Amino acid sequence: LSIKVVIHDQIGRCLLLKRSPSSKANPGKWEFPGGKIETGENFEVGLLREVAEETGLIISLQHVAGAVEYELPARKVAFLILEGQLITGQVCLSSEHDDYAWISPEELPKKDLVEQFRSFARTYKPFHVS
Amino acid sequence: LSIKVVIHDQIGRCLLLKRSPSSKANPGKWEFPGGKIETGENFEVGLLREVAEETGLIISLQHVAGAVEYELPARKVAFLILEGQLITGQVCLSSEHDDYAWISPEELPKKDLVEQFRSFARTYKPFHVS
Repeated sequence: LSIKVVIHDQIGRCLLLKRSPSSKANPGKWEFPGGKIETGENFEVGLLREVAEETGLIISLQHVAGAVEYELPARKVAFLILEGQLITGQVCLSSEHDDYAWISPEELPKKDLVEQFRSFARTYKPFHVS
Repeated sequence: LSIKVVIHDQIGRCLLLKRSPSSKANPGKWEFPGGKIETGENFEVGLLREVAEETGLIISLQHVAGAVEYELPARKVAFLILEGQLITGQVCLSSEHDDYAWISPEELPKKDLVEQFRSFARTYKPFHVS
């Protein structure tokens, strides 16, 4: 189980992160912040920690945006995708990513996304316009 | 975060459980098996344990079926809904439920479901017909 979040800024744009060229999986592809929640951790706390590590941003979680699955060679991974709102902070990337972009929800499918988020991005509608 | 599972039997029917009249929340309403995953537990192990406790059934997890959210007075709960396949067992209920039903996916919306699953049930399509 992995939890990702579509973070909206104050004018309704969404944050995408670009995976480093040195990533083992999907180098150079775009994705949403978030990741595998460590066991023993409250899921909300874990996701906010992961987002802070990856982006330097403080956000609030607002809604459930969707769920997708992805088949790896050895196992299937379930992704829960939430919607969040930027509270404060400037984007500061970790070594996992080397670029970021704030783009409108309609532009999401035009980015070269990691495969498991492509169909989600095509149908995603923000819960409410910020 | 709560994880529920639509369990399919060998002829494609889905399992619903009816909440006991003594339940604090939603007495007498129908729901899917599953529940809150305890922290410190692998989510798949936790869900299989929860299903075994509630239904006595051994299942395999197959697909992601959807995600919904529900607003409680004090907080919001995210539900990830998976699809599973019955492997073996006879339904044996815990004290949380007092009835169960195996029904076709099309019949799900006709049951008096717990509120957060009603819109999911109206649009749910099994990943593949068993």
